[in-house]
Amino acid sequence: MIPEPRLVEVRKNVLKQNDMIARALRERFRESGLLAVSLVSSPGSGKTAFLEKTLTLLQPRHRVAALVGDLATENDAARLARSHAPVKQIITGTVCHLEAAMVQNALNGWDLNNLDFLFIENVGNLVCPSSYDLGEDLRFVLLAVTEGEDKPLKYPTIFNSADVAIITKSDLADAVEFDEAAARRNIQSVRPGMKVSKLSSKTGEGMMEFLDYLEMNRRNCRAASAVSK
Amino acid sequence: MIPEPRLVEVRKNVLKQNDMIARALRERFRESGLLAVSLVSSPGSGKTAFLEKTLTLLQPRHRVAALVGDLATENDAARLARSHAPVKQIITGTVCHLEAAMVQNALNGWDLNNLDFLFIENVGNLVCPSSYDLGEDLRFVLLAVTEGEDKPLKYPTIFNSADVAIITKSDLADAVEFDEAAARRNIQSVRPGMKVSKLSSKTGEGMMEFLDYLEMNRRNCRAASAVSK
Repeated sequence: MIPEPRLVEVRKNVLKQNDMIARALRERFRESGLLAVSLVSSPGSGKTAFLEKTLTLLQPRHRVAALVGDLATENDAARLARSHAPVKQIITGTVCHLEAAMVQNALNGWDLNNLDFLFIENVGNLVCPSSYDLGEDLRFVLLAVTEGEDKPLKYPTIFNSADVAIITKSDLADAVEFDEAAARRNIQSVRPGMKVSKLSSKTGEGMMEFLDYLEMNRRNCRAASAVSK
Repeated sequence: MIPEPRLVEVRKNVLKQNDMIARALRERFRESGLLAVSLVSSPGSGKTAFLEKTLTLLQPRHRVAALVGDLATENDAARLARSHAPVKQIITGTVCHLEAAMVQNALNGWDLNNLDFLFIENVGNLVCPSSYDLGEDLRFVLLAVTEGEDKPLKYPTIFNSADVAIITKSDLADAVEFDEAAARRNIQSVRPGMKVSKLSSKTGEGMMEFLDYLEMNRRNCRAASAVSK
């Protein structure tokens, strides 16, 4: 009874337009030599806490900025502003994901040549963001130990669309009897070979190793950019 | 650049069809004298744990059944089957929410006259399920103490579409320094007068009071059904 073919057709058009804008964004990021990283997860998995910690730790050595998506409120931008990095909030209204055009608009007025890292925090949602390319170089999917080990099996598409899985809130692992081996097994069964990191933005456990990984990717990305110039 | 008017029009048609089916479902539920309750929340807020506990505790005195929605896997149905209540899994594929037609199809073969309570667990998503009426009498939105107190402000639509807010995983409140007063204040600012319960499916804290509330609603609903016959 649902007019599916027409809906599917319209959705394909939206995605096609999105992919074109995403491709242009990726090209701009590459030319600027910055590393663009997006974060996806359930609401409350700790995207903003992770980002605040990351911005603060990267800042002494790097030029960093962030865009944060939410249906409503500028709370996340206010939290991230404490890191003193440039931050813009994207308010999506009732839209359940970020789109490349929203990222493009939000970047107006920023000189990307002055940035080493751009972080894009998506709306908290484990389903809808998976289909939308934002032009990012890397997509991180966050999974808090408090959410249960089965999330990769239940939301396979978003794990498949991401490059790295980050297990967050590791400081709570014992309190919730988190089965890390099961979580890792589930991630690997959905996306074999996926890089998995475990960390706590609160205690800092695992953060320094993760920053090394980010800096390594940034060096590779700058090298690629220099070669192409 | 996105063909918004056309997309909006198609979406409105989908919603209209959904509302018609939801209305027919609500009528069937009323005639059967059962109480239909749906659960919405982020992935990992504890919908399935809450439902397993509720089914187990209600069963000695009531006839209960559940439908559970997920993108993939029948894990939740398997977990809920431990309660020995009839359970069906609805696999949505890539669809980020349940629709009334999915509920209607899943009920095929069940005699609703033999049920006192029907629970419908939506896909874990704080955005998309808000727009879809499933014919339920009551909609519960779950918020785990591990998710942060600001979720009602950031996802106001789903809190507005729900009747009751349930704060789950209360046993972890101290470990995560949960600010209950702030959470309640945020819920009330989004939906003034909303009923809020706090409980733990793990320790059972708050569960008995909540079952009293469910049973009271079921009595009211049966009384209304008897009057209309």
